Amino acid sequence: MTEPPPEEPATVVKRRPGRRPGTADTRGQILAAARETFSEKGFDKATIRGIARQAGVDPALVHHYFTSKEGMFVAAMELPINPANVIPTILAGPREEIGERLVRFILTMTADAEARQPVLALVRTAMTNDRMVVMIREFVTQALLNRVAEILEIPPIRMEVAFAQMFGVVLMRYVVELEPLASIDIEELVELLAPTIQRYLDPPR
Amino acid sequence: MTEPPPEEPATVVKRRPGRRPGTADTRGQILAAARETFSEKGFDKATIRGIARQAGVDPALVHHYFTSKEGMFVAAMELPINPANVIPTILAGPREEIGERLVRFILTMTADAEARQPVLALVRTAMTNDRMVVMIREFVTQALLNRVAEILEIPPIRMEVAFAQMFGVVLMRYVVELEPLASIDIEELVELLAPTIQRYLDPPR
Repeated sequence: MTEPPPEEPATVVKRRPGRRPGTADTRGQILAAARETFSEKGFDKATIRGIARQAGVDPALVHHYFTSKEGMFVAAMELPINPANVIPTILAGPREEIGERLVRFILTMTADAEARQPVLALVRTAMTNDRMVVMIREFVTQALLNRVAEILEIPPIRMEVAFAQMFGVVLMRYVVELEPLASIDIEELVELLAPTIQRYLDPPR
Repeated sequence: MTEPPPEEPATVVKRRPGRRPGTADTRGQILAAARETFSEKGFDKATIRGIARQAGVDPALVHHYFTSKEGMFVAAMELPINPANVIPTILAGPREEIGERLVRFILTMTADAEARQPVLALVRTAMTNDRMVVMIREFVTQALLNRVAEILEIPPIRMEVAFAQMFGVVLMRYVVELEPLASIDIEELVELLAPTIQRYLDPPR
């Protein structure tokens, strides 16, 4: 078995013009272009066309790989989930149990260190970088908060304070590590938090 | 009117050994020593005696200036309030209105840019500095969360999720600047958040 010499081939492929589209390398180039474009322009002003141009590929190829601008953002930032895929599942089922389902989903997902690591890395960067804040704000607003608010027919402010509650809990549990919050069982937290989230997501009286 | 020449005298005083204790310079030296000690040892392990030694002054002088370790922490980090001074006022009055009073107090205080700036600066540093996280966690736990939990006779976890809610709201309002959260009226937020905080701070059923 002759192994190819390490490093060299990838470098050569990267620099070879006129290569076939659709290699792993192309995907990586699109993601690098996406990261650059999102952090420069924010989420709202970035376009698939612009990212394709930046990567030197056809926009159809970007669509083929990532389906949507959101899908590309999720891949570029290595986020554990795409809200577009998860929201329908969480919002399905009885409306009076949405709080519980949402809280359990967020706590279960963030209990996985590999899933929460890229999210926390993004938050850390954003705390000291204004352009990253804009990018994250626009993505969270468009892909998550406004979409759920629209489906549930509630004012966006209610989604925002619900998001603030869950964001605060995850931050205090995994970054600040307040005790007992850092080590308490998920189901105990669900019991405490679900009525809060349910109230925010109920139609305002 | 002859004004003293600028700069020079302060510099001279600073460098003169054997100066009388209790000058503005001494206070500054104590605060510098406090910042160093707190960030190195955290809040719990730091002592007034140790900080006095670090500053080269008598512990009685530190007591004279800052009354307590908490008072010294508040001054060293330029925090807008000392929890020890504020908690009794907020917890006075009808128990069923604590949620409302607490939410209004936090939102009014953080509406002042000068008051929230040092707090947010501390949070920013902590996001990328593990020792600062320890220091803040210990201070928040000792000076704020456990103290209130004890007075209200509720489990600390309930104070922690209440804190997470308010911390998340302030972060989303002033750092991430989610809209409409960033520009909504304080009283509208009080209406939305007070029942949440009230429920956490009520005796568990």
